[in-house]
Amino acid sequence: MGVKILTIKEDILGANAENAKGNRELVDKHHILMLNVTSSPGAGKTSLIMQTIGRLKGKARMAVIEGDIASTIDADKVSKEGIPAIQINTEGACHLDANMIKKALDNLDLGQIDLIVIENVGNLICTAEFALGAHKQVMLLSVPEGDDKPLKYPLMFTQADVILINKTDVLPHFDFNMSAFSKTVSGLNPVAAIIPISAKTGEGLEPWFSWLEDALERRGTKA
Amino acid sequence: MGVKILTIKEDILGANAENAKGNRELVDKHHILMLNVTSSPGAGKTSLIMQTIGRLKGKARMAVIEGDIASTIDADKVSKEGIPAIQINTEGACHLDANMIKKALDNLDLGQIDLIVIENVGNLICTAEFALGAHKQVMLLSVPEGDDKPLKYPLMFTQADVILINKTDVLPHFDFNMSAFSKTVSGLNPVAAIIPISAKTGEGLEPWFSWLEDALERRGTKA
Repeated sequence: MGVKILTIKEDILGANAENAKGNRELVDKHHILMLNVTSSPGAGKTSLIMQTIGRLKGKARMAVIEGDIASTIDADKVSKEGIPAIQINTEGACHLDANMIKKALDNLDLGQIDLIVIENVGNLICTAEFALGAHKQVMLLSVPEGDDKPLKYPLMFTQADVILINKTDVLPHFDFNMSAFSKTVSGLNPVAAIIPISAKTGEGLEPWFSWLEDALERRGTKA
Repeated sequence: MGVKILTIKEDILGANAENAKGNRELVDKHHILMLNVTSSPGAGKTSLIMQTIGRLKGKARMAVIEGDIASTIDADKVSKEGIPAIQINTEGACHLDANMIKKALDNLDLGQIDLIVIENVGNLICTAEFALGAHKQVMLLSVPEGDDKPLKYPLMFTQADVILINKTDVLPHFDFNMSAFSKTVSGLNPVAAIIPISAKTGEGLEPWFSWLEDALERRGTKA
């Protein structure tokens, strides 16, 4: 049975890669920067997005695509800030795929957007396997999850362009060894930026905003 | 493409259900209690298992089946305590399945075991879909993940027989509303026991041990 699953998976991934390519072409045509944000459940993706909305207000036009198994909690939060938000409910699927993103893009006014942030389903595994067409992979790991996670979920850490270590405000209460973590990551992915942040208190967010503003600048603005 | 995936999934789940039934018959034959422990990455499954090993020493003969994408970190920890431990590396799959458990059971001396604890892959989604043949579903949610998780990952919470809220030692540092959480869970699953614990400090573990010893007693011991 194992081999059978693998064959099916390859077909699905092949079709997904085609769709992801189409998404990339579409956002490129509109000079949009698109980010795929991944993490475990509750690591702080939405809090990071809320902080980023605050920072970019008046600087770049942002839209958010929210992926969840169920509920519209996150899209509601974003929408309250006056940001275009699309909620995708996967109804059981453990990740977003490129076809879902295509449908979301069809529902956004792409000519009026500089940055699209995709908040993927909370999961360190399946989300790493499905390309969405995003330009950059932004991964969050939160301090309470522990510094051994790169060894257990290597694909996600290998693919990340930037790794944000969130919830540094509670570092004193957990045994999280930042230098051990960095060493493990550098073995898997020597080029990813590692940025410790607290999306709750705002501490450490400057390097993240710099990274983002640099990426937006390279993309070219519409204004 | 959506419909195609679903059809495939049903076939896989059908075959898995058959294998799970076989596993259940096998452990029943040996009067073993088998638990399937699930959570997000880093929520504290291994710490709970280590505490449980300490408590049951001399009372019940325990074995552990560890599921991870990669690495043997968790099985090594368990093995150091003199407990039979099987590590399953799923090499990318986001959950254990019944066939993997069958292979692990084949490598255990079932006549000498009272309790098998399966530590599933860290994931709140896929692990809920694949029955393993376990008698009870034990779910951990950690305080830092947030009290809104039942709304986002309803299947896992619906299936749980017992829900352990771990890392209560850091409750003062997080906005986790225990009564809001209990209310949400009771809407999905009115019968699951909810037990707040700290697997790190040991606080609150007595009700968990009572639950477990009661389940073991009902199972009947071999001695």
